[in-house]
Amino acid sequence: MKTIQRFLFQNPLDLFLLSLPLTLAGEIFHWPALAVFSLTCIGIIPMAAYIGKATESLAHFTGPRIGGLLNATLGNAAELIITIVAIRAGLLELVKASITGSILGNLLLVMGLSFVVGGTRHGRQIFDKRNASRNAILLVLAVLAMLIPSLFSHSIGPETSPKVEALSLGVAAIMIILYIFGLLDAAKSGDTPVTQEPAPASILPKWSMKTAIITLVLATTGIVWLSEVLVGVIEPVVSGLGVSEFFLGIILIPIIGNAAEHLVAVQFAGQNKIALSVEIAVSSSLQIALLVAPILVFLSLALGHPLTLIFNTFELLALIAGVIIAALVSADGESSWLEGAALIGIYLILGLAFFLLPV
Amino acid sequence: MKTIQRFLFQNPLDLFLLSLPLTLAGEIFHWPALAVFSLTCIGIIPMAAYIGKATESLAHFTGPRIGGLLNATLGNAAELIITIVAIRAGLLELVKASITGSILGNLLLVMGLSFVVGGTRHGRQIFDKRNASRNAILLVLAVLAMLIPSLFSHSIGPETSPKVEALSLGVAAIMIILYIFGLLDAAKSGDTPVTQEPAPASILPKWSMKTAIITLVLATTGIVWLSEVLVGVIEPVVSGLGVSEFFLGIILIPIIGNAAEHLVAVQFAGQNKIALSVEIAVSSSLQIALLVAPILVFLSLALGHPLTLIFNTFELLALIAGVIIAALVSADGESSWLEGAALIGIYLILGLAFFLLPV
Amino acid sequence: MKTIQRFLFQNPLDLFLLSLPLTLAGEIFHWPALAVFSLTCIGIIPMAAYIGKATESLAHFTGPRIGGLLNATLGNAAELIITIVAIRAGLLELVKASITGSILGNLLLVMGLSFVVGGTRHGRQIFDKRNASRNAILLVLAVLAMLIPSLFSHSIGPETSPKVEALSLGVAAIMIILYIFGLLDAAKSGDTPVTQEPAPASILPKWSMKTAIITLVLATTGIVWLSEVLVGVIEPVVSGLGVSEFFLGIILIPIIGNAAEHLVAVQFAGQNKIALSVEIAVSSSLQIALLVAPILVFLSLALGHPLTLIFNTFELLALIAGVIIAALVSADGESSWLEGAALIGIYLILGLAFFLLPV
Repeated sequence: MKTIQRFLFQNPLDLFLLSLPLTLAGEIFHWPALAVFSLTCIGIIPMAAYIGKATESLAHFTGPRIGGLLNATLGNAAELIITIVAIRAGLLELVKASITGSILGNLLLVMGLSFVVGGTRHGRQIFDKRNASRNAILLVLAVLAMLIPSLFSHSIGPETSPKVEALSLGVAAIMIILYIFGLLDAAKSGDTPVTQEPAPASILPKWSMKTAIITLVLATTGIVWLSEVLVGVIEPVVSGLGVSEFFLGIILIPIIGNAAEHLVAVQFAGQNKIALSVEIAVSSSLQIALLVAPILVFLSLALGHPLTLIFNTFELLALIAGVIIAALVSADGESSWLEGAALIGIYLILGLAFFLLPV
Repeated sequence: MKTIQRFLFQNPLDLFLLSLPLTLAGEIFHWPALAVFSLTCIGIIPMAAYIGKATESLAHFTGPRIGGLLNATLGNAAELIITIVAIRAGLLELVKASITGSILGNLLLVMGLSFVVGGTRHGRQIFDKRNASRNAILLVLAVLAMLIPSLFSHSIGPETSPKVEALSLGVAAIMIILYIFGLLDAAKSGDTPVTQEPAPASILPKWSMKTAIITLVLATTGIVWLSEVLVGVIEPVVSGLGVSEFFLGIILIPIIGNAAEHLVAVQFAGQNKIALSVEIAVSSSLQIALLVAPILVFLSLALGHPLTLIFNTFELLALIAGVIIAALVSADGESSWLEGAALIGIYLILGLAFFLLPV
Repeated sequence: MKTIQRFLFQNPLDLFLLSLPLTLAGEIFHWPALAVFSLTCIGIIPMAAYIGKATESLAHFTGPRIGGLLNATLGNAAELIITIVAIRAGLLELVKASITGSILGNLLLVMGLSFVVGGTRHGRQIFDKRNASRNAILLVLAVLAMLIPSLFSHSIGPETSPKVEALSLGVAAIMIILYIFGLLDAAKSGDTPVTQEPAPASILPKWSMKTAIITLVLATTGIVWLSEVLVGVIEPVVSGLGVSEFFLGIILIPIIGNAAEHLVAVQFAGQNKIALSVEIAVSSSLQIALLVAPILVFLSLALGHPLTLIFNTFELLALIAGVIIAALVSADGESSWLEGAALIGIYLILGLAFFLLPV
C-alpha cells in the first residue's frame, strides 16, 4: 500500500491510467459520449508522458544528434497521432485549430504559468537574452511563413483549388527544408531550437533501452486507440455540449496532447530554471510550425483528405498576437509573475472569445 | 501687479482659468456653440492640472502605496469625468474614440514631443532599457487584451448582443484583476508601471493636506461642470464644423484631458530626465487600458448606456501601430530628436486620416 | 585577350553589357517580346552598377555631406528612372508593386543572402546592436507612416477621390520633411541611416571627377533608354507568360534595379562586415519609403498620372511582415546562416504566393 502511495506521489499522472479500463468499459457498454470523451482526454495525458520519458531515455542511448531529432518528433507524438486520426475522420477544421492551439498554449499558457510559478517563488527571474531572442526570431519567421498562404489564399481561389493546394505544399516543402537546415545547424553547433534539449538526467527514469522501446510501443498503441475513441465521440460531444468543434480543437485538444510536456516546463520554472521553461515553450511552437504542420500537409494528401495551411481569421489573429508577445517577452531576457499573469489573462480572453463564437 | 506677473510666469496654465467666467457668460447669453466649446476646452486644461497637483500633494501625505493608487486613478480624473458625462449623454463612439486617442496621444505625441525637446537640448538621450522594456511589454499585453473583443465580435454577433456584452465584461473583469495584481506587485517591489511614480518634490506645490483636498474638490466640480457644457455643445459643433464626432473624440478630447500631464512629461525631457517622460507616456497608456477602460465598461452598464470594448477598424489599426512603435522605441533604451520627429509625423498622418474620414 | 579576361574576372557584371547591342538589334528586328524583355533586364544591371560607382567616386570629391545626399538619391537612380518611365506609361500598379518589392527585396532577400554568405563563412556574426536597432526603428516608423493612407483610404473614398489624393500628398510631404530632418541630423552627427555611408575606398574605382560625371551621364542615358524598351514590352510579356503585372513589379523589377547594390551588400557579408550589409539593406528601404515614394507621388502628379500611396492588401501584409522581421532580426545584433535561410524562405513563399495570384 505504502509503495503504491509513494509511487503515486512521485508520479501523480499515473493515477490517470485508471481511465484506460474505464474508457474500455465505456466503449463496450455505450456510456454517454461526454463521459467517454472525458475519460479518453484523461487517459491521453499519462500516455503522452510515457512517450516523453521513453524518448528521453532513448535519446541518452543514441547520442545527442539523433536524440535531439527523436525528442523533436516523438515529443509531439501524442499530438501527431490525434491529428492524424482526426484527418482520417475528415475533421480538418479540428486539426488546423489544434495546430494553432498548440502554439498558443505553449506561448501563452505554458510560458504564463511558468512565469507565475517561477516569479512567485523566486521573484524576478533573469535568463540568457541572446539565446532566447535568437529562438524567438526563428519562431516569428516560422509562424509568419506558415501564415502567408492564409493571407493570400482567398484572392487566389477557393481552399480546394489546385493553386491554393500548390501554395500550401510549396510552403510545407520550404518549412521542412528549413527544419532540415535547423538540424544541420544543430549537428554543427549543438545549439538550436529546432530540436529539444535533452532533459537533465536527474528527472529521467533509469530505464534500459529495452524498457524504453517497449514503453514507447505500448504508449503509442494506447494513444492511437484513445485517439480513435476520442475522434469517434467528438460529433455527439459537440452537439451535446453546444460547444464548437473549433473550441475543442483550439483549446482542449492541445492542452491534453501537451499536458505532460507543459508540466515539465512549469516544474523547471519552480526550480528557478526559467530559461528551460521558455526554451520548451518556444521550441515546441517552432517544431509545430516547421515539422508537425508540414508533415500533416503531406500525410493528409496521402490519406485522401488534403489539409491546406489555410487558417481562419481567428487563428491568424491569435497566432500573430501570440508570436509577437512571445518575441517581446523572451527578447527581454527577464520574467516576472505579473508578466505571467498577463499572458494567462490573454489566453483566458482568447479562450472566452473562442467559446462565444457561434457553433 | 508684479506678483501676478510672476505667478503667471510660473504657472502659465492659470491664465486659462479666465475661460471659466467666459464659459459661464457663454452659457447664459447663448454664445455660438463653437465659442463655448473652445472656452470649455481651454478651461479644462488648468482644472486637470490642479487635480494633478492636488493628487501629488495628497500622495505625499498618504505614503507611497495609497499615493501610487491615488495618482493612477486621479491622474486620469479629468478624462474619466469627461467620458462619464459623455456616456450619460449616450455619446459612446466619442468615448471609445477618446480611449484610443488617449493611448495614441501618450505614445506618439507626448513621447514624440519629449524626444524632440530632449534631443534638441541634450543630443541623444539614454535611459534604463530594462525598466522601459518591462513596462512596454505590459503595455503591449494590456492593449492586445483590450483589442481581442473587437477582433472577434463581428463573428459572434451584433455589438448589442448579450454574447458580445459578455465578452466585453469578461475582458474588463480580467483587466481589473490584472490591474489589482499590478498594485500588489507595486506594494511588494515598489517598481511597477500600473501606478505612477510620485513626482519629484521639487516640482510639487507646498500645500497642506487641507489645501490639497479643497483644491481637489473644487477642480473636480469645475471639470464636471465644464464637461457637461462641453458634451452639450458637441452636436452643434460637429454639424457646424463639418468635423466628425470621431475626430473630436480621438484627437481633441484626449489632448485637452491630458494636456497638463503631457506638459509635465515634456518638461522632464527638457530637464534631461527622458526616462521619466517615457514612463509617464507608457504608464498613462497602461492605466487607460487596465483601469479607465474597464471602469467605463462597468459604469456604463450602471448608467444604462452599456459601453462595449468594440473598437472600429481605424482605432484598432492605430492602437496596434502605436503600441508596436512604443514597444520598439522604448525597448531600445535611447531616444533622438529624429525619432521624436518621426513619432510626431505618424501622429500627424493619423490625425490627417481621421480628419478626412467622412462624418 | 588576357586583359579582357582579367577585366571580366574583376568586373563580371560588365559581361552583361553585351546585352545592350542585342537589345538594340531586338528593337530593330522586332524580336519576340520576351527576348527583348530579358535583354533589357540584363542590360540594366551593369548600368545601375556604373551609376553606383560613379556616384561613390563623385561623393569622394564633394565631401561627406553632399556625398551622402548624392549616394541616397543616385543610389536609387536606376529604380527611380524605371518607375518614372512606367508612370508616364500609366503602369501605376507596377510602380507601387516595385516600391513594395524593393523594400521586401532589401529586407528579406539581401539581408537573407548576406546572412547565409556571412554565416557559412564566418559562423555566427555579431554587429553593433544600438546602431542597427536605431535604424530599424526609423524604418518601422517610416513604413508605418507610408502604410496609413492604404489602411484608411477605402473608408474615405475611391482611390481617385480628392480626399484620398490629399491624404497621399499630405503623407508624402511629411515624409520628405522627415527625410530633410534626417539630412540635418546627418550633417550634425554624421551618423544616420537616411543617407548611405560612403563605400570603403578599397572597393572604389580610381576615377577622376570628369570620368565619374561622364560615366554617370552615359549610364543614366542608357537606363532611360532600357527602361523605355522594358516598359514598352511589359504588356505582351504579361499576356504571353501568363504572369501578372503585379508579379513583375514586386519581384522582377526590384531585383533588376537593385542587383548591383545587392551584390555589394552580399560581398560585405562575405568579408565579415555584416554590419555594413544590414545597414545597406535597412538604409535602402528607408530611402525608398522616405525619399523615392514621395518623389514619385509628386512627380506623378506633374506627369498627369497621379500615383497615390494606396497599396493593395498583399503589399500591405508583405510590408508589415517584412518590416517586423527586419526590426527583430537587426535589433538582435547578431546573425546566423539559419536566420538568413529563414529570411530567404519567407521571400520565396511570398514570391510563390504573388506568382499564384490571378492575373
